[in-house]
Amino acid sequence: MTATSARGDAVVLAVDVGGTHVRSAAVAQGGAVSHRSRRRTPPDARDLVQAVLACVHDTASQLRLSGGLTPDAVVVAAPGPLDRTAGAIEASANLGAPRVALLEPLRAALSLPIVVEKDVDVAAFGEREFGAARGADDFAYVTVSTGIGAAIVLGGRLVTGAHGLAGEIGHAPVELDGPPCACGNRGCLETLAGGAGIARAARAAVTDGAGGALAQLDDVEAIDVAHAAAAGDAAAEAIITRARAAFAAGMVSLVNAFDPALIIVGGGVARGLGEPLLEDARQAVARHAYGAAARATIFRAAALGDDAGLAGAAAVVRAWGV
Amino acid sequence: MTATSARGDAVVLAVDVGGTHVRSAAVAQGGAVSHRSRRRTPPDARDLVQAVLACVHDTASQLRLSGGLTPDAVVVAAPGPLDRTAGAIEASANLGAPRVALLEPLRAALSLPIVVEKDVDVAAFGEREFGAARGADDFAYVTVSTGIGAAIVLGGRLVTGAHGLAGEIGHAPVELDGPPCACGNRGCLETLAGGAGIARAARAAVTDGAGGALAQLDDVEAIDVAHAAAAGDAAAEAIITRARAAFAAGMVSLVNAFDPALIIVGGGVARGLGEPLLEDARQAVARHAYGAAARATIFRAAALGDDAGLAGAAAVVRAWGV
Repeated sequence: MTATSARGDAVVLAVDVGGTHVRSAAVAQGGAVSHRSRRRTPPDARDLVQAVLACVHDTASQLRLSGGLTPDAVVVAAPGPLDRTAGAIEASANLGAPRVALLEPLRAALSLPIVVEKDVDVAAFGEREFGAARGADDFAYVTVSTGIGAAIVLGGRLVTGAHGLAGEIGHAPVELDGPPCACGNRGCLETLAGGAGIARAARAAVTDGAGGALAQLDDVEAIDVAHAAAAGDAAAEAIITRARAAFAAGMVSLVNAFDPALIIVGGGVARGLGEPLLEDARQAVARHAYGAAARATIFRAAALGDDAGLAGAAAVVRAWGV
Repeated sequence: MTATSARGDAVVLAVDVGGTHVRSAAVAQGGAVSHRSRRRTPPDARDLVQAVLACVHDTASQLRLSGGLTPDAVVVAAPGPLDRTAGAIEASANLGAPRVALLEPLRAALSLPIVVEKDVDVAAFGEREFGAARGADDFAYVTVSTGIGAAIVLGGRLVTGAHGLAGEIGHAPVELDGPPCACGNRGCLETLAGGAGIARAARAAVTDGAGGALAQLDDVEAIDVAHAAAAGDAAAEAIITRARAAFAAGMVSLVNAFDPALIIVGGGVARGLGEPLLEDARQAVARHAYGAAARATIFRAAALGDDAGLAGAAAVVRAWGV
């Protein structure tokens, strides 16, 4: 990375492609996030590149107006499964899309170096540089959002697998005959503990005749179910209890599989479910993980909130040497 | 490794500590296994070191008699969870033992370099050097035996985790309210698909009134259940069908977590269940793994059979530079 801005501060233009919004911002070397913009994630995936470009142009012109800053690179955090070679989102259950090429059309439209990286990986880099995993060489970053995914760092290196697809723990079956998942399988972790799965379970409960708080909600989201459960609604409590048990089981699996020493839990649904989600996972791992050191795995809430996938862009650019 | 034998062939004295037998052999650099010995695994774990030493002395004296060969090192393949720093087996569900120090007492008794390594890791090295994973840099070796475990190699390196405990996929919960596992959790993969779990399910079925082939067996083992299922016994078929479904779910999780490109399946129970076990896993992964490249993960039966944990010792010594 050779170019620096007019003011001498290198900034990266970060874009986070989420299930509901595409967000962008400028990220300083120290992780400070500014010059934000966002668009609704378009329902038709063919419009996604346009939404990303609109955000990029917004943030870029804010930067120009505030002292003539020019970003050194664009980092796009995209949901998996990601084809890293092509810089494309593969057929994605969460976005309901067939395949979305990002790198190629963005390269054609922009004259900056572009990195397309998996969203959880960017967030993991962010938490490691600026957040709850500072200084950790062995840790997992787990996001509980619309879906569930993880980035695993061991010995200071991201575990990517043979094709860059590692860490998709949301599609670990934790209940053999469980509810169907968008991936085609049954009982996947994210079907039980992810935001979309929790909302779906609430709608199903209402259809099955559950009255109470859930029946009075129009467009139920996971956070509504969490609130209803906290207020003592029985149907909501059953769903949240199940979600926490599934998440705890998934964390035992994660610890047994990767032995990461530290697990950072982020994502909007994790924030909504709060400390009890972490505490259940902590206790399940302390009781059931295989091996004494594994049972001592530390759980921490993510520190960067929604900004992890943006702030991490600065760390990604350094790691990649863009 | 400087010392070579009197005949110029370096040999390693390999010991494999299994759930039923402790076995030893001499292993040549090319992986040839000879001069075998074995003892029953003692019921009291405090006798384990004596059993290992008896095997070591057996094989060593066979080597002396056949031309004065002296092994360069002793490699002990031990079940996890393994405390790698201390060279000790931690409290082990499968062996029913509290903690068994191996490295220290063996060092006191033998004047050879000693390596204590996890059994699946030795087997993975064996399959990579001499067996079904030859030349593979990204693969998992999965053993289905009394229990279930895995060794994962990515980028040519063993994934060990923060404390050497990675790969314990046998204790991944695949059924939230499933049968209790010796680890204290419920519905672990190995409780449903491991040898001990299959035998336990058969005994439970008989207790619950299942007649047929299972009721006529004295000391039922997983292989008996497989045979009874193949002969059309309904209770046995239900157990084996469940075991294959659980194993397939576990392999989807493994692929999603590690993206290993190739999975080698070994262990006595896997041999007993045969090709259908692999075929169910292959089909589940082809349908349900997350990401196109992951769905193309190759499944192969292990090539070295029971000798993987012995033959791998030669590769371990080379890798460790003992």
